[in-house]
Amino acid sequence: MHNYLAIDAGGTSTRAVLVASSGQCLGYGSAGGGNPVSRGFEGSADALLGASAEALGGTGGTVHSATVALAGASLEMPPEPLLRRLEPLGLSHGVVIESDLLATFYSGSYHDDGHALIAGTGAVAARVEGSRLADVADGTGWLLGDSGAGFWLGREVVRAVAAALDGRGPHTALTERVLAQLDISADTPRRRFGRPGALQQLITKSYALAPIELSRFAPLVFGAGADPVARDIAGRAAAELARTLLAVLEGGLDGPLVFGGSVLTKGGSIAAAVMEEVRERAGGPCPAPVLVRDGLAGAAVLALKRHGVAVDAAVFDRITASLAALRG
Amino acid sequence: MHNYLAIDAGGTSTRAVLVASSGQCLGYGSAGGGNPVSRGFEGSADALLGASAEALGGTGGTVHSATVALAGASLEMPPEPLLRRLEPLGLSHGVVIESDLLATFYSGSYHDDGHALIAGTGAVAARVEGSRLADVADGTGWLLGDSGAGFWLGREVVRAVAAALDGRGPHTALTERVLAQLDISADTPRRRFGRPGALQQLITKSYALAPIELSRFAPLVFGAGADPVARDIAGRAAAELARTLLAVLEGGLDGPLVFGGSVLTKGGSIAAAVMEEVRERAGGPCPAPVLVRDGLAGAAVLALKRHGVAVDAAVFDRITASLAALRG
Repeated sequence: MHNYLAIDAGGTSTRAVLVASSGQCLGYGSAGGGNPVSRGFEGSADALLGASAEALGGTGGTVHSATVALAGASLEMPPEPLLRRLEPLGLSHGVVIESDLLATFYSGSYHDDGHALIAGTGAVAARVEGSRLADVADGTGWLLGDSGAGFWLGREVVRAVAAALDGRGPHTALTERVLAQLDISADTPRRRFGRPGALQQLITKSYALAPIELSRFAPLVFGAGADPVARDIAGRAAAELARTLLAVLEGGLDGPLVFGGSVLTKGGSIAAAVMEEVRERAGGPCPAPVLVRDGLAGAAVLALKRHGVAVDAAVFDRITASLAALRG
Repeated sequence: MHNYLAIDAGGTSTRAVLVASSGQCLGYGSAGGGNPVSRGFEGSADALLGASAEALGGTGGTVHSATVALAGASLEMPPEPLLRRLEPLGLSHGVVIESDLLATFYSGSYHDDGHALIAGTGAVAARVEGSRLADVADGTGWLLGDSGAGFWLGREVVRAVAAALDGRGPHTALTERVLAQLDISADTPRRRFGRPGALQQLITKSYALAPIELSRFAPLVFGAGADPVARDIAGRAAAELARTLLAVLEGGLDGPLVFGGSVLTKGGSIAAAVMEEVRERAGGPCPAPVLVRDGLAGAAVLALKRHGVAVDAAVFDRITASLAALRG
């Protein structure tokens, strides 16, 4: 009987949980972004330590090890420097680095074979075989891919609005919402050098943002109701995400299917549209997707599995239920 | 009878010509990028002075004025600082700033009403009325628009290659060409965390570029022959460009139509596909487009027109013929 630390280190926040061999979660903590690539090594280590300290809280006693779920590019780093920085936690058996994609899969299932599709700011799909990533599709970033995810959606929204403003595209309810978010008056009639005033302002304000920040406009699609332009964007996003999931299928889609990321968990009808497309094209049985919040429960599952603790339905249910209670 | 300086200040190069009231071009010069927004004011002024000095060469005598064609955002600058920096040229009547879009139109026509479509790295269309820009569509930059132009094409190419590599998209002849351009071995079989090795390298090398540099892959589409993926990208580019041109039409497409930019002048079948689409949807008479190299001849036309010199067919032909001879 040991206690394990499990950490899900994301780009904008880091979450940690202390979990017992039984699956009982004993403490929870959170901190800022913990991705070493986007935050730098020191900032990342500070976030990991902060979230961990909160999770350990007043529990005392020895911690067996820390299992840290990190995004793709961070997995290529040597783990030793991170291990040294986590020394204050007094881990008796060191640090294990895992893929955040695998952690997200295990947030929805304790089985070692299945599929996951995640669409937050980026989009990525994985086939899990024997508790390892057997195949991965997309996750190639905002410029090369991440098709159908948050940045992709936000970019399509501002492009549709720019096209509506200068007459290349149809009118859309998105225009008013984007201009309002950027504090641009819709009836700026003045044309400088033939261009609508509101469009000139949209250009100026959009390029003042980092490109990736366009993802802030993604939620406008989720709630756009009957607007044909928004529905078209949502439909194309679902088609892209289905294509990404279908790319990692080998044979049918049996075993558990886990959906993560805001576009699939809060994206209105997008998840259902993805499933409709996948059912049509995958053939065979097709399970309903399990929606998960992030990779923290899965990091706890991995912390136990990687140290020889069997995780069955009862242990898995204990992890998810006790963690949910801690997070409130 | 005066001599006028005309300057076409582009993002990557600046061209200057000394033109007489008769339309006879007397000297030509070129220099590096002259766009104040991308090059900074001093770098831009240096390029303008360098190209101008070369154009003036050994001609001697007074120069009446300089007409400088600049891209959109630069038109908002106050002209005084530029005028001061051009003082060494000894201009008797100062500097006139004009739109590079209008200059490109006048490179193909001396009429004061008509249309222009330009697709280089960016894409923009204009309706010219009474020698002014009456309406402009797109030209909204790589993030918001420039649909169908160089960056758009290059981005579609690398996205198609990324999708082909991880099985989201069909195989394409573009893959081999893009990997070769980036010195990536196509048969890197190793999968790190489920991802094809060649794709991991494509990601690393693509994000090391500035986004706009993806436009280097655009020419792969021009010469891709029968490859269905490349043909699909070219077809969608033509549809986007047609949509941009159609957006500035008011009534029919009568009067001259000018095409500029490498995508339309060197882009294989793209210009023809644009025209096919426009003919179908615009209705009425539809002139064959005049293809122009850049905005330099048009800057010369504007230099004369803005100072009360009538430019008729004979003067226009003299400008284009003598300028072509000077440029070799």
